[in-house]
Amino acid sequence: MTVQAVAKTNPGRFFEDYAVGDVLTHAVPRTVSGGERALYHALYPARHAFYSSDEFARSCGLPSSPLDDMAAFHVVFGKTVPDVSLNAVANLGYAEGRWLKPVWPGDTLRSESEVIGVRENSNGKTGVVWVRTRGLNQRDEVVLEYVRWVMVRKRDGDAPAPEPVVPDLAKAVDPETLAIPEGLDFTGYDFTLAGEPHRWGDYEIGERIDHVDGVTVEEAEHMMATRLWQNTAKVHFDVGARPDGRRLIYGGHVISMARALSFNGLANAQIVAGLNAGAHANPCLSGDTVYAWSEVLDKAETPAPGVGAIRLRLVATKGHAPFVLRGEDGKYRPEVLLDLDYWALMPV
Amino acid sequence: MTVQAVAKTNPGRFFEDYAVGDVLTHAVPRTVSGGERALYHALYPARHAFYSSDEFARSCGLPSSPLDDMAAFHVVFGKTVPDVSLNAVANLGYAEGRWLKPVWPGDTLRSESEVIGVRENSNGKTGVVWVRTRGLNQRDEVVLEYVRWVMVRKRDGDAPAPEPVVPDLAKAVDPETLAIPEGLDFTGYDFTLAGEPHRWGDYEIGERIDHVDGVTVEEAEHMMATRLWQNTAKVHFDVGARPDGRRLIYGGHVISMARALSFNGLANAQIVAGLNAGAHANPCLSGDTVYAWSEVLDKAETPAPGVGAIRLRLVATKGHAPFVLRGEDGKYRPEVLLDLDYWALMPV
Amino acid sequence: MTVQAVAKTNPGRFFEDYAVGDVLTHAVPRTVSGGERALYHALYPARHAFYSSDEFARSCGLPSSPLDDMAAFHVVFGKTVPDVSLNAVANLGYAEGRWLKPVWPGDTLRSESEVIGVRENSNGKTGVVWVRTRGLNQRDEVVLEYVRWVMVRKRDGDAPAPEPVVPDLAKAVDPETLAIPEGLDFTGYDFTLAGEPHRWGDYEIGERIDHVDGVTVEEAEHMMATRLWQNTAKVHFDVGARPDGRRLIYGGHVISMARALSFNGLANAQIVAGLNAGAHANPCLSGDTVYAWSEVLDKAETPAPGVGAIRLRLVATKGHAPFVLRGEDGKYRPEVLLDLDYWALMPV
Repeated sequence: MTVQAVAKTNPGRFFEDYAVGDVLTHAVPRTVSGGERALYHALYPARHAFYSSDEFARSCGLPSSPLDDMAAFHVVFGKTVPDVSLNAVANLGYAEGRWLKPVWPGDTLRSESEVIGVRENSNGKTGVVWVRTRGLNQRDEVVLEYVRWVMVRKRDGDAPAPEPVVPDLAKAVDPETLAIPEGLDFTGYDFTLAGEPHRWGDYEIGERIDHVDGVTVEEAEHMMATRLWQNTAKVHFDVGARPDGRRLIYGGHVISMARALSFNGLANAQIVAGLNAGAHANPCLSGDTVYAWSEVLDKAETPAPGVGAIRLRLVATKGHAPFVLRGEDGKYRPEVLLDLDYWALMPV
Repeated sequence: MTVQAVAKTNPGRFFEDYAVGDVLTHAVPRTVSGGERALYHALYPARHAFYSSDEFARSCGLPSSPLDDMAAFHVVFGKTVPDVSLNAVANLGYAEGRWLKPVWPGDTLRSESEVIGVRENSNGKTGVVWVRTRGLNQRDEVVLEYVRWVMVRKRDGDAPAPEPVVPDLAKAVDPETLAIPEGLDFTGYDFTLAGEPHRWGDYEIGERIDHVDGVTVEEAEHMMATRLWQNTAKVHFDVGARPDGRRLIYGGHVISMARALSFNGLANAQIVAGLNAGAHANPCLSGDTVYAWSEVLDKAETPAPGVGAIRLRLVATKGHAPFVLRGEDGKYRPEVLLDLDYWALMPV
Repeated sequence: MTVQAVAKTNPGRFFEDYAVGDVLTHAVPRTVSGGERALYHALYPARHAFYSSDEFARSCGLPSSPLDDMAAFHVVFGKTVPDVSLNAVANLGYAEGRWLKPVWPGDTLRSESEVIGVRENSNGKTGVVWVRTRGLNQRDEVVLEYVRWVMVRKRDGDAPAPEPVVPDLAKAVDPETLAIPEGLDFTGYDFTLAGEPHRWGDYEIGERIDHVDGVTVEEAEHMMATRLWQNTAKVHFDVGARPDGRRLIYGGHVISMARALSFNGLANAQIVAGLNAGAHANPCLSGDTVYAWSEVLDKAETPAPGVGAIRLRLVATKGHAPFVLRGEDGKYRPEVLLDLDYWALMPV
């Protein structure tokens, strides 16, 4: 007797299953601890002192080191995968991301997403879905929010197209709306322990920094990372999931790798506060050596003592290929893996 | 001067070294923390909410999330390897396994095994040893017990055969004897956060579930896992230990991988409470893609509020091969890696 | 506008940048937790009970298990890399190492190094730099100190050679100066739980022990370990950093692997207290199977109850090659990876 072979498993949502205004409560809340912090340091060459040392964080006015901002992002993001991107063809973009509260060891995170846009593609086979995702802690405080849009397959090509709704998204987060961790004070900042002398005032808009170091990535590492964030997308784990027999590396793994590499030149860009935009330009595969470079896009003052905001473009490349982003055709060059636009907080 | 080259190292026990009634106190107690929990989530796609979220565990009546039941099993099992299976030819089976107390971060586990059976094989070169292993915490409470039997080499083929003692083992753990964690109450269970709507009442005896997802396993992962459990069997670590130059993956790695994959379709089978039987049907090697399917073997009520017991067969396969267990010859098909029979607790 | 492409990144120091008496304050303090402990057990087959079980450590007079001594060493060492060995050609030796205070979960470590010697090589292209490194905790207590010397490239071959200063280093740490953890008492030591019956009195000077077991190492493992210690040397991470396209395994990874393997025969040599000397004899690469053997070099009494000191040579080899260290030419044989000389504390 074989009863309902796949009826109880999650087939994921298709384009038709999203309607503007729906709120998806994502499953599997997650408590984080010193274990996640240690693993983050094992998986990425993370050296920003604020997340490495409780004492350093205390000298900046916080009670201890929070979980790395990108680790918090990955935990929140991972929960959305079964509901948002299991049948996604492509992860198209990010916008309006803000880290609103530090995540502490012992906190439990959960995620929810509101559908804020849908638009069927002209081929009738896929559509674009926009969601605004929020990560919440056990006190129901929003710790993180961002907009993501993905291309999703239709279940039924003959299903009628919904009324298109395309959200009007900010090109960049207004720096006045960035959330600054309560108590943050960089006036007593120790540049020696942080690793570099360069302060906010030392960076010029337009300046580019080659982060010099490269890391060759392995299957075991990216799978451990992606599982740690409870991201279930098959393409990251199963060699049979893609026609080329290669496991696609989770884009967030590349983000964290590049952000960690950016220490060398941006050691004082301690805290990620806003996510303006992001594109996973080309797939990253095991054996690739990831390098990174950054460009200063903007700067802003903040009301917090000694704290400035810096807007950075962070580019990850396959091999050492600094400062070239797009070809003559305007498309990302094949060695570009990631083009991320974010706000960081640093000592002025 | 070369004094006693190997005299101080542990050669392991041979068949002659076991006598019924012997109690082996296994070495190297181990304290677990949030680090083990994080690593468990990095090594396996573990998503059962009860072990992922302290808040979810609290909503089920417990003070916080215990260590994953299988992680507890691996820690207890690992300690037995130097005394039980260092010279084992094969791990033959499990029976009468029960998880008796949750294991909390900060607990220290140790193991002891009582020899409950011995029987020399007709070839005179090997014998079967049955042990009942108990895992104890720092309060001397038994947190876990199970029977395991292994085939062990004789040191001396001419040694006389002992009087055979074959224990009479239960075919399955009586569900009335399953231990339910103190305070467990599923009456306020949140199916949305748990990830699936299917409750105990929704599963039928005989029902089979294809868990759909596959994970390709890597050497670094299974070695990290096996070391984490302080399992020292050479075949898992040394390419020179087997004639084929391949590292055999610890059977418990396959158990945890399959159990984690079973989330997709059995997300609410939260707690492993009993181990009825288990066979490592074929070796698992790096590069294999592990899939899993389950069959509902039995169901039982429990006295705990809102808690039902479900008896499941969990089968891991190399590649996607649901629902076929044995060939016409009655033997496990070559793609079957694991055939495990266990009791889980889930909301009614 | 491309402004100062590499001006903000750390090019590392060259030979000319070191002067005797300089004190280098190394960046990026690090807080350790149960996460680092769990990862240490996942990365190495570590089984010494004192570091595995809080209860065992309590039975030896300590409040709980400290961080493994070698993990503490790696954290302290890792911080020195950007200032000491980024442009190093070779890590030449260690001396006068002492572990002075246990490192507890929650402690924050930082490092500083004093330049105690410089000597230009006759080729005029490189020089040797000696530093005394200290690891300090958040209470400014020195937890660890050691001398290391490295061969470093000159930035400018025409720069004049400095006055040579070669420190006079002890051949071995005087056992009377070894620091014994406060409260340590081995009079109630449980040899059964520790895993072996052999006490300090059972080891003879000159005795050699083949530790029997081997572990084949993988890229993902050594990179995770090396990142965990925030060691940034390119050669460990980037396949393009060396002409042979191979990633060199951090020598400390081999130290920890060999020390963990030495459990089998030296399970009671619980605590590493002194580092007398050390040579990374040949490079270790992914795919190598690491074995280890030890030789008892000396023994000494200590004032602590039940505690003896044992001086051990720990040799790691590629493949199983016990007891042969040097060829007829007096050079290390090609299969020798590590020759380490250390003091351990064990029950008398």
